[in-house]
Amino acid sequence: MTLSATQAQRGTLLYEGKAKRIYDVVGQPEMVWMEFKDDLTAFNAQKKGSFAGKGQVNLAIAQLIFQQLEKAGVKTHLVSALSASEWLAKKVQIIPLEVVVRNRLAGSTAKKFEIVEGTRLEKPLVEFYYKKDEWNDPFLSDDQALMLKAVPSQKELDELKRRALTVNSCLKQLFAGAGLDLIDFKIEFGFASNGDILLADEISPDSCRLWDVKTEEKFDKDRFRRDLGKVEESYQEVLRRLKSAQALL
Amino acid sequence: MTLSATQAQRGTLLYEGKAKRIYDVVGQPEMVWMEFKDDLTAFNAQKKGSFAGKGQVNLAIAQLIFQQLEKAGVKTHLVSALSASEWLAKKVQIIPLEVVVRNRLAGSTAKKFEIVEGTRLEKPLVEFYYKKDEWNDPFLSDDQALMLKAVPSQKELDELKRRALTVNSCLKQLFAGAGLDLIDFKIEFGFASNGDILLADEISPDSCRLWDVKTEEKFDKDRFRRDLGKVEESYQEVLRRLKSAQALL
Repeated sequence: MTLSATQAQRGTLLYEGKAKRIYDVVGQPEMVWMEFKDDLTAFNAQKKGSFAGKGQVNLAIAQLIFQQLEKAGVKTHLVSALSASEWLAKKVQIIPLEVVVRNRLAGSTAKKFEIVEGTRLEKPLVEFYYKKDEWNDPFLSDDQALMLKAVPSQKELDELKRRALTVNSCLKQLFAGAGLDLIDFKIEFGFASNGDILLADEISPDSCRLWDVKTEEKFDKDRFRRDLGKVEESYQEVLRRLKSAQALL
Repeated sequence: MTLSATQAQRGTLLYEGKAKRIYDVVGQPEMVWMEFKDDLTAFNAQKKGSFAGKGQVNLAIAQLIFQQLEKAGVKTHLVSALSASEWLAKKVQIIPLEVVVRNRLAGSTAKKFEIVEGTRLEKPLVEFYYKKDEWNDPFLSDDQALMLKAVPSQKELDELKRRALTVNSCLKQLFAGAGLDLIDFKIEFGFASNGDILLADEISPDSCRLWDVKTEEKFDKDRFRRDLGKVEESYQEVLRRLKSAQALL
């Protein structure tokens, strides 16, 4: 990438999601301008909230994580930060699958199987959910994902699983250094214009479950979902810990 | 099998399901005695009904189907009929997966994806549901089935899929000869004592969706589920048509 952040000029709004706005970049058809909002939503946006600086803390965490992943050989869409709550990314065609990796069971899958939250899995479980709010993001098997033409073939599903497990290995190590146990997380991928599959969207306490390794205190969006309080403080603490851990590397 | 039906003696009740009772066979530890009940249930037994002779018509249909499948090389647990509503089968350890094959979308999967009932699929879709009433038989991916240890490995899941598709090919042809379009069906498999995987349980209008090829009139349990009337007449009509078709073979 030769485009520097100072040269980028925000274009028209392409899409507004629950936590981000995506804009064109003037004269750069292969780029997008992503703005991290201060909004927090849960349960398919039935529950809404926000805190000042939430976009900034999430961007800082996501940037730190994506940079670490790039070092580990995982290709991401991130190009560079534009401001404290905006970044420049490669434009991708998002694959309409939420890829979830679980190290310990929590949330919907723990509930579905009536398994105690926090149960450790023998090996990480990768799950696909179809990105469609109107259907409430349903859980999919590989064959259902192919039926819905979420990707062209099983080859891409296998590739998404492989990459998700690589991301999991990197993240587990990164968070362990910050005294946090990575319970599960959700990621998204997209096709770049050259056909490459890139890790897209973001990784932050919005999309991970992170428990203190000693106390099992939650430092993620479950504090908002479950009205546990200290949402902002927890997100800031994740950033603080990740920065401290990084300083030690 | 050397045991004849006249030699078999019913032992103790091993299990009572929604539509069948399973008994030991005295002195034959590798056999079970299956009684087809007149009961009909739907929606995880929240809706209950019955009609006299339902066990008999289902056994007659299932026996005809299983015999055709055996001719096509599909191994089943059926040994021989004992009476109009009882049969002798090889004892198996049931694999706790309902294996569903869909040629056209209907029921829960049509609803989940808001796809019009009856939509034809480019290729048959195989789905696994975990057999556990308390969890409401949840839909599973392969990885979830392995996490729950439903089978020892992916090899068995692949084998179940292969067999389910073979059963589908046979059944589609069989029902087409009877003027019926096979929309979808549910089957179960079990491990015999020698480790063989056998098609178990039954195949009947309780476990298939069957629509008249011309009028698309339903001839299956949806008549009961959806209060369409003529439940008994429809089951009898399926048997009559299958017998006529068989007489032409």
